[in-house]
Amino acid sequence: MSYYQENREAFLEGLKTFLRIPSISTEPEHRPDIQRAAEFVRDELSAAGMAKAELIEGAGHPLVYAEWLGAPGKPTLLFYGHYDVQPVEPLEEWKSPPFEPEIRNDNIYARGSCDDKGQVYILVKAVEGLLKTTGKLPCNVKFLIEGEEEVSGEHIESYVAKKPPRLASDAAIICDTEMFAPELPTICVGLRGIVYTELHVQGADHDLHSGVYGGAAPNPIQAIAEIVTALKDRDGHILIPGFYDRVQPPSRKEKEAWARLPFDEEEYRKKEIGSPALTGEPEFDVFERTWARPTFEVHGIRGGFIGEGAKTVIPARAVAKISMRLVADQRPEEALAQFKAAVAKVCPRGVTAEVKLIHHAGASLVNPDNRFIDAAAAAMQQVFGSQTVYIRSGGSIPIVGSFERSLGIPSVMMGFGLPDDNLHAPNEKFHLPNFYRGIEAVARFLEIVGQ
Amino acid sequence: MSYYQENREAFLEGLKTFLRIPSISTEPEHRPDIQRAAEFVRDELSAAGMAKAELIEGAGHPLVYAEWLGAPGKPTLLFYGHYDVQPVEPLEEWKSPPFEPEIRNDNIYARGSCDDKGQVYILVKAVEGLLKTTGKLPCNVKFLIEGEEEVSGEHIESYVAKKPPRLASDAAIICDTEMFAPELPTICVGLRGIVYTELHVQGADHDLHSGVYGGAAPNPIQAIAEIVTALKDRDGHILIPGFYDRVQPPSRKEKEAWARLPFDEEEYRKKEIGSPALTGEPEFDVFERTWARPTFEVHGIRGGFIGEGAKTVIPARAVAKISMRLVADQRPEEALAQFKAAVAKVCPRGVTAEVKLIHHAGASLVNPDNRFIDAAAAAMQQVFGSQTVYIRSGGSIPIVGSFERSLGIPSVMMGFGLPDDNLHAPNEKFHLPNFYRGIEAVARFLEIVGQ
Repeated sequence: MSYYQENREAFLEGLKTFLRIPSISTEPEHRPDIQRAAEFVRDELSAAGMAKAELIEGAGHPLVYAEWLGAPGKPTLLFYGHYDVQPVEPLEEWKSPPFEPEIRNDNIYARGSCDDKGQVYILVKAVEGLLKTTGKLPCNVKFLIEGEEEVSGEHIESYVAKKPPRLASDAAIICDTEMFAPELPTICVGLRGIVYTELHVQGADHDLHSGVYGGAAPNPIQAIAEIVTALKDRDGHILIPGFYDRVQPPSRKEKEAWARLPFDEEEYRKKEIGSPALTGEPEFDVFERTWARPTFEVHGIRGGFIGEGAKTVIPARAVAKISMRLVADQRPEEALAQFKAAVAKVCPRGVTAEVKLIHHAGASLVNPDNRFIDAAAAAMQQVFGSQTVYIRSGGSIPIVGSFERSLGIPSVMMGFGLPDDNLHAPNEKFHLPNFYRGIEAVARFLEIVGQ
Repeated sequence: MSYYQENREAFLEGLKTFLRIPSISTEPEHRPDIQRAAEFVRDELSAAGMAKAELIEGAGHPLVYAEWLGAPGKPTLLFYGHYDVQPVEPLEEWKSPPFEPEIRNDNIYARGSCDDKGQVYILVKAVEGLLKTTGKLPCNVKFLIEGEEEVSGEHIESYVAKKPPRLASDAAIICDTEMFAPELPTICVGLRGIVYTELHVQGADHDLHSGVYGGAAPNPIQAIAEIVTALKDRDGHILIPGFYDRVQPPSRKEKEAWARLPFDEEEYRKKEIGSPALTGEPEFDVFERTWARPTFEVHGIRGGFIGEGAKTVIPARAVAKISMRLVADQRPEEALAQFKAAVAKVCPRGVTAEVKLIHHAGASLVNPDNRFIDAAAAAMQQVFGSQTVYIRSGGSIPIVGSFERSLGIPSVMMGFGLPDDNLHAPNEKFHLPNFYRGIEAVARFLEIVGQ
């Protein structure tokens, strides 16, 4: 039995310890947990045998850095992941508490189990195994693990933008995506960007009684409804002028590859989404809608009365959380400006509307013709026993763009999540066989790169 | 100096004690405060010299009853008010804590100061003054004060529906409305009804990541936006089929009386509402829009992420609090059925929508030609020194309909609130001169009725 097989129990216990830290980056009261999670990763890297394991403090949450540079002449890989997690609301829908990992049916359930602590831990344990058994790595490896991926990633972005010499590498390895299907090793070669905003709408200068003023006073919630329905039609077409101008359709070759992926739309609707019907632009298929088309999504509306019972208030103001996913070649700043202009144009009488940017990131398309992607595909194929497929992801990993722009390196997105892992939702899970195979696949990848 | 002038300080202290009880009827955790408020009113009535002051327990919050029947052959009046109050959110907008009454510029600021504790207290102190100074009242008086006006009023409604002999009266006196303007004594002769609902919309069967599923998954918040904009246009016209069929326009005489009321629409917009423009059906004036036309109002939307920062969730479900104000001769059950049918018709693909009734009440129109309204008008005119005007209110006082249907008595709505008293909103206040004059006006009213 190899080190990787012998130590599964220890790997699992270590992962559980990691998952018990509620490192929610969007909530300031969890700042001490962020610190604990960063220190946990640093200490694990140090224990694994990586050199110079340390925290890089800055304006935001600490980055964790470590390196092993004992393979002169061999390529240098930069391992990226994040130790922060999403909020857990609605808490009542979790079957087990989000920060008390529980194993059910070969899955480990906890916030961050898949996104991204489980996958960060894969990277750590892969190098640990090689270092413990051979005393060295087949190529040079650096770790850069951040704690703001779910919020803005400003710290890592500004750090990478300074092009620090210690980050010099040949490729970034990003373990934060998912496999297309169980047993189907997957490399992600495209990501959507995002512009996340708040739409602040103000009507009256104080809350009003709907009996006394209903019929004459503006209602900011109704105004938000008018704005969002004016900007997206019932078929999912975004009506922001100019918004689609730079959208590049996928190549015919890529679409043909997508058509060969095992996919049953009815199964997807029933098992992954569970809604009466799918929505979105009817002239595009699901892959194109979720990977290669932009979106316009309202995440929540604050304002007014949402408690139990009845309150007949016309709120003075309301705030909608609205994001737009972007695809190549849309530009975040331009999309934001287009959104702002469109809001100004469709804002109804009686209210004022203001758009505030929360964060943004560009879309990424990676050219799959490079040796590191080839090595990753081969390694995963060997461990999983079936051919690696290339897909895109509808999500956003802003750092991919930063690595390309600032460090001039491509990213290899080899992820081990599954489509039903409930990312950002209650009952997030990680499939334990993928956890163990992921560790071996990353180790095998290092061996191939080092050959 | 009369008893009423001599005891102003004591009246004010008593009112403050009443206002310190956070008797919020929509929030179950305030149930003990409801009890305390009911007992406070009972004890005040008893101390005022009313007989048989007691709580009537039932399915909901206790009713407070008291009577003085020492004027055989004279009319019997039923005094109505409520000791429960609205919730206080958003708490941060209060300049002083809602349950710590504070006096600023001759106003007392507290939740319930105007709606309706201040006005209940007016009734209590009016009878107290007469009883303490003359040992009797000029006519028979019964009190029926409830604790569910802001939630549903089910207890009082079922109690009144039983037509208990002890409620037999010639007219109800309701002190829960407002004056049209400071110095302008006012009787309200019309109220809107209400249908208060929750619109529950379900998309996916669990929360989804907007990166992974955005473009294919339904969004219940967007669906609510589509439904509410399909049911009300930008000019305030309600698009629910059949909704306006029974709406009765005000008589020419009533409209002419409204046209004589002192009213500056621009002042109203700036000072009472404070929004960039008024809204609502442009073909009707403000009085007709707020008194004699129905409304469709979204009070809040629950679901999704509304915390600080960003969460890229597509929520599985969302709930909108939606009310419709009704006018004569609309029927609540019919309006509810029309709303449900309209929602089913406009509900977008990918979600299911369900309407749940929270509470409802019919609209009321009182014929002003009766001796009790004449007496009230004369009493207020004597105390305030200017002619009493007749208006309607856009709010809903369901008990008016119950009194008419079950007890066969008209209601006299003599209210002492002011248009800028911030009912149901932060910084609710009551104008102290109106508090003191209200007490005297009610006492004078009893004298006129007893003549």
